[in-house]
Amino acid sequence: MRKYRGHCKLVLKPGSTEDVSKILRLRKNNTGYDLKQLFVGAEGTLGIITKASIQCPRRSPAQNVAFFGLESFEKVQQAFREAKGQLSEILSAFELMDSGSQDLVFQVTKNKRPLEKRYPFYCLVETSGSNPDHDGEKLQAFLECVMDKGIVADGTLAQDETQIKTLWAWREGITEALGHLGGVYKYDVSIPLKQLYQMVEDTRARVDAAGLLGDSAEHPVRDVVGYGHMGDSNLHLNISTRHYDERVEGILEPFVYEWISQHGGSISAEHGLGLAKKKYIGYSRNDTMVGLMKQIKNLYDPNGIMNPYKYI
Amino acid sequence: MRKYRGHCKLVLKPGSTEDVSKILRLRKNNTGYDLKQLFVGAEGTLGIITKASIQCPRRSPAQNVAFFGLESFEKVQQAFREAKGQLSEILSAFELMDSGSQDLVFQVTKNKRPLEKRYPFYCLVETSGSNPDHDGEKLQAFLECVMDKGIVADGTLAQDETQIKTLWAWREGITEALGHLGGVYKYDVSIPLKQLYQMVEDTRARVDAAGLLGDSAEHPVRDVVGYGHMGDSNLHLNISTRHYDERVEGILEPFVYEWISQHGGSISAEHGLGLAKKKYIGYSRNDTMVGLMKQIKNLYDPNGIMNPYKYI
Repeated sequence: MRKYRGHCKLVLKPGSTEDVSKILRLRKNNTGYDLKQLFVGAEGTLGIITKASIQCPRRSPAQNVAFFGLESFEKVQQAFREAKGQLSEILSAFELMDSGSQDLVFQVTKNKRPLEKRYPFYCLVETSGSNPDHDGEKLQAFLECVMDKGIVADGTLAQDETQIKTLWAWREGITEALGHLGGVYKYDVSIPLKQLYQMVEDTRARVDAAGLLGDSAEHPVRDVVGYGHMGDSNLHLNISTRHYDERVEGILEPFVYEWISQHGGSISAEHGLGLAKKKYIGYSRNDTMVGLMKQIKNLYDPNGIMNPYKYI
Repeated sequence: MRKYRGHCKLVLKPGSTEDVSKILRLRKNNTGYDLKQLFVGAEGTLGIITKASIQCPRRSPAQNVAFFGLESFEKVQQAFREAKGQLSEILSAFELMDSGSQDLVFQVTKNKRPLEKRYPFYCLVETSGSNPDHDGEKLQAFLECVMDKGIVADGTLAQDETQIKTLWAWREGITEALGHLGGVYKYDVSIPLKQLYQMVEDTRARVDAAGLLGDSAEHPVRDVVGYGHMGDSNLHLNISTRHYDERVEGILEPFVYEWISQHGGSISAEHGLGLAKKKYIGYSRNDTMVGLMKQIKNLYDPNGIMNPYKYI
């Protein structure tokens, strides 16, 4: 979970943009259908955004970051529940990283790891609030609670802005590290929280069973890793490869999409379907829903000139 | 501003509701157009909601309420800015009430007023957080700041749950009080914050200039009052009448809608257009927007059987 602090309102062509932009600056407007919302996630297939009105709340004066090691995904879920209860209004991020993703970052950066011992899972917890003393007290109480209850095996708390950045780099450096090590199959998916990490384990087991996973050069897959945002059940599943091998693709697809469909997830959480996933929309939307979408596309773009070849 | 603490997700017919409801339980799903959003504010004109999935965050353990008297709407805006900065993550309501609305509540309930002296404006500030001590400290510091700076003329802080309810009754009792005193013309509108209260003043001046406003029985209008939510610039404009008089209606409409349109507001903030305001949609949406809406209505409900006679 990362909270996005700005609210963005989109202005739709056609029509008088002056009128429209005035209206879209309002936070409440219940006069008719909320057409702007149709554009969110439409990937440009319905029209062109010509203006955006952005609301910018003030930045919170107090920011804190803690980094944990945990023994299981069950403990990660417990820690997340405690954080929601105790940190509540100041909890601004609760990020999940598995050991594999952290090993990849270490391999590329050679930076000193935040915790000496290695754990199957790591979490980064960020708080943002208006009073540094209050936030520090809440975070300290939370840390003591999750350590005493044995939920968290080890943890560290950033002491200043530099340490906050250093800890975040272990989470935000994953994508770059993967890029340094060869090819990557990436999936940005949304799965009910309980089964979130099961997706990584099942994919790893499947790749391994096919003899494609290993430490030596003849194995095309280096590792199957996962990280994501606990707050909205969003997993980034990454299959790191040494070289291209069509067997990997055959093993992954449609397996990944079928698994997600069976577990009530979405095959595109944050990034939309784009070109690559256009043929897989059926795994997250039934025929009726796709039919309703096609009707809207035909209505507003009868000549199919808006971002063509996309999912509709 | 009142924060709504639950997230509600709607399930759309037709289609397999089982599939759909699974998907709608996800917080992130970017596969195609977000059709659910079209239903929000559509007032049942596009289809029938057959299931809703509701997310219930825990109730905050700490709640506080303060009640202020202020000398001008300019001071109300200053107090609101200070509250956003200092109370920030725990600010859960900032309600505006004018003296007229409070006089009506007093007239009906005869309850003891929260503040001895009378002021042109009152505000109710509510905080909700996870730590009662922290919230109390923040609210105390905020109170001292707005009193020292002369923003707030007088104020009181609820000491327990009963006092919280008593203070809220001065805000929430307005609608009931209006109902006890005869007829009411009600407008639920959204206006850029700076001009929010100007709407009440201009309406009062117009009714007064027409000789319709006064203390005695021959005047159809008893008072023109306003209250609302500062956080989303939402004003409830109420014209309290003694008896029906068609001159009042002639004075109010289309004046109110024209005023809002000129000031870049919306004629329906919270409650939708319904039957009463269907012919006024043009004051908040231009012809192009209304045309796009009509096309969607015809597409999904070609026989016009979904909540007919409404705004489209």
